[in-house]
Amino acid sequence: MIRMDADKPIKTETGPAHVLTMEDWSVDAIHKLLEKAQWFADHPEKLPLQRLYAANLFFEPSTRTKLSFEAAERNLGLDLLHFEADTSSVIKGESLYDTVKTLESIGADVVVIRHDRDRFFEELTEKLNIPIINGGDGCGHHPTQSFLDLLTIRQEFGTFSNVNIVIAGDIFHSRVARSNLDVLERLGANVYVSGPKEWMGDELEKRWLPMDEAVETADVMMMLRIQHERHTVKMAAGPDEYHKRFGLNEEKAARMKPDAVIMHPAPVNRNVELADTLVESDRSRIFKQMKNGVFVRMAVLRHVLEKQKGCLNQ
Amino acid sequence: MIRMDADKPIKTETGPAHVLTMEDWSVDAIHKLLEKAQWFADHPEKLPLQRLYAANLFFEPSTRTKLSFEAAERNLGLDLLHFEADTSSVIKGESLYDTVKTLESIGADVVVIRHDRDRFFEELTEKLNIPIINGGDGCGHHPTQSFLDLLTIRQEFGTFSNVNIVIAGDIFHSRVARSNLDVLERLGANVYVSGPKEWMGDELEKRWLPMDEAVETADVMMMLRIQHERHTVKMAAGPDEYHKRFGLNEEKAARMKPDAVIMHPAPVNRNVELADTLVESDRSRIFKQMKNGVFVRMAVLRHVLEKQKGCLNQ
Amino acid sequence: MIRMDADKPIKTETGPAHVLTMEDWSVDAIHKLLEKAQWFADHPEKLPLQRLYAANLFFEPSTRTKLSFEAAERNLGLDLLHFEADTSSVIKGESLYDTVKTLESIGADVVVIRHDRDRFFEELTEKLNIPIINGGDGCGHHPTQSFLDLLTIRQEFGTFSNVNIVIAGDIFHSRVARSNLDVLERLGANVYVSGPKEWMGDELEKRWLPMDEAVETADVMMMLRIQHERHTVKMAAGPDEYHKRFGLNEEKAARMKPDAVIMHPAPVNRNVELADTLVESDRSRIFKQMKNGVFVRMAVLRHVLEKQKGCLNQ
Repeated sequence: MIRMDADKPIKTETGPAHVLTMEDWSVDAIHKLLEKAQWFADHPEKLPLQRLYAANLFFEPSTRTKLSFEAAERNLGLDLLHFEADTSSVIKGESLYDTVKTLESIGADVVVIRHDRDRFFEELTEKLNIPIINGGDGCGHHPTQSFLDLLTIRQEFGTFSNVNIVIAGDIFHSRVARSNLDVLERLGANVYVSGPKEWMGDELEKRWLPMDEAVETADVMMMLRIQHERHTVKMAAGPDEYHKRFGLNEEKAARMKPDAVIMHPAPVNRNVELADTLVESDRSRIFKQMKNGVFVRMAVLRHVLEKQKGCLNQ
Repeated sequence: MIRMDADKPIKTETGPAHVLTMEDWSVDAIHKLLEKAQWFADHPEKLPLQRLYAANLFFEPSTRTKLSFEAAERNLGLDLLHFEADTSSVIKGESLYDTVKTLESIGADVVVIRHDRDRFFEELTEKLNIPIINGGDGCGHHPTQSFLDLLTIRQEFGTFSNVNIVIAGDIFHSRVARSNLDVLERLGANVYVSGPKEWMGDELEKRWLPMDEAVETADVMMMLRIQHERHTVKMAAGPDEYHKRFGLNEEKAARMKPDAVIMHPAPVNRNVELADTLVESDRSRIFKQMKNGVFVRMAVLRHVLEKQKGCLNQ
Repeated sequence: MIRMDADKPIKTETGPAHVLTMEDWSVDAIHKLLEKAQWFADHPEKLPLQRLYAANLFFEPSTRTKLSFEAAERNLGLDLLHFEADTSSVIKGESLYDTVKTLESIGADVVVIRHDRDRFFEELTEKLNIPIINGGDGCGHHPTQSFLDLLTIRQEFGTFSNVNIVIAGDIFHSRVARSNLDVLERLGANVYVSGPKEWMGDELEKRWLPMDEAVETADVMMMLRIQHERHTVKMAAGPDEYHKRFGLNEEKAARMKPDAVIMHPAPVNRNVELADTLVESDRSRIFKQMKNGVFVRMAVLRHVLEKQKGCLNQ
């Protein structure tokens, strides 16, 4: 599953110049990025990047992703250009390309974009000279969320090999699940899925475990957020019924392996996919994931700026 | 009226770890904070706090309070995480607690919150490890507004003892009035009220003065903003009628004591509670109050961060 | 056309203390400002202004102007107070004057304002002690847009004397056109107009050229944006028809003089006033204009702060 593009050796070795999808990242490049993120985690005295500008273009609401990028940018010493989607010329009908080209002209050195259009970035990377970081596109990719999940697992188990990971819930509508499933398998983990069978594509059937078996198999239970706002198919069961049948409650959590952990991309629907009392339990790594989000975004920003500028090697 | 919690001696001596209500502040702690604010007023060369993050969560519209906090934060060298209530995950139904916990995880060192729910902060301070500053809750408290009023009076008279203060107007719906009345009395001032009698609770009746007597008694006329947007009881009189009967106009201002001053939390409804021409008159301290707002917020931020971090003593 | 106010000699020599309209600027003062902007263009190592605050008050949507000011401010080392028009006390009915006076009290050293009221700034400059920069008022003035157009022309031809400039399109509704026409003529350029005759006032008739003659005459084709959102008079022709008759397409561009260039204030309505393929063609200076926008705004900010503070001479 690793891409072996003989004609793009540098890309395969050191990671792509933009950060768009996890498929663009070789196992080697992923490991290098995680090491860099861990280095930031271990060294609170961060190296500031002087006089470089980042702009965060969030065309969909977000707290944690936007602020996490902002914290990462400020931690690195980057300056911000405060783009506001709802008062921008985009409402006069300006295209995304023209908007980003404007930001480049004004002085942005890197742009982070969340947009509801799948693969919004394709037109941009062809024609722009600054790196683009995908902060989430449509139902597609969300690479920095994947990276933070990976860093959290790596901190926990020191490896991905033969770690049993169950992704549970609304996989069909989850950016996180799609990005994670492939990359975790590439890194050597055993990936299972759980949740309502009607939410799984056919190709996931062979990985499916009933919830009772899932909790006993998993080293990591990756619970997904029920995306009420995206659901086209009606939920057969109400929230209480869902919680009982497919959610993780205290009774099921008690049957998990001693060192197994619970992850969730947040925000949590408390008592739907995950019991309220488990969110801050000993097994939970949910707030650890948020902290790691800042470190991987620092690593990702540093990565693309180093590729671009060629002179920021620490 | 001073809280003598024998089991919380440090709190009583040096002020609380969060800034939530004026009741939590002993007279001693109030004086200490005002001295600190005055120190900032006197020393334009401010000490920067490196690599600390503040986040301002304003769930209600505000110009002066939000920007005043922002100026105070930047003056101290704090960095900002730009939270925007209207594009945050709160609109996906995330709780205030989960939102603030996220900010803590991402790296916020102090959080300022304005929220329309009374005592919104109670759940937060129990469970979070970063200080919360109340930027205004419901119809309840607004401690930094109280502190700036106090600093302004202290600059004017050098003391609170036997200073005659008249709070005039819509006391029932005013955050400022509630916080101020108690604390001014605790500090030794003589506090009176004026304005429409139907806007006073029964317990205020004994302090009530008719406007004609109030202007001759006051060292400080604290005019309140008519909160049109909060009023549940209809105003008996229109704005003109209100101005004539309960507002402060030039004719009444002329009868004030020679050194008496006019204060107002702003924004002013010009020619309703206060005549247009008095807003920037010699007696007015309205823009001085705004300047002092930045100094007290610097002092408040420094106070909570010192309590938290234990190492920022200048 | 130069204002020779004998009683305001300093203003005429060094430019006004506020930046409001191009009429306030003498030819001398314009040249001085352009030299300063060019100096910033030539010296990427910019001089930071420590501990000074700028506030950008944009009461109308904008991407490029707001972010361009922000980049200019940050490049100079100014700090920002983040004013948000839509959550400010302005929605409680506070006047623009009271809002800006508040910002001054809180610590703003310079304020940039875009507002839909013509000459919104008149009341402000009389009564405030900080400089105001006009970021666009009503259908009236937009001086920093004019300055960036001027800098771009100056970089291209080294002079304005006898440069043939055609302003084409919706001159009647364009801030840019109004500000530019007068000032270009004052600087020695030959200014023509083109586009639908019904969009020209009578006083422009003598400058009017048909599009076919305009493209052969021009050293600079300044294409204007069709302001769909401002148009009170219905466009006689649809966008395709407009493009054919009054827009600039490849066929017409091919007939321009060898060194002639295309300018546009952006955002472009692609294939209406300007062919898609010309936006990033060799003749286009559109993205150069955006870069220059940051340099002229740096120069303008430095100019007003030097006038105000009297001590920032480099």
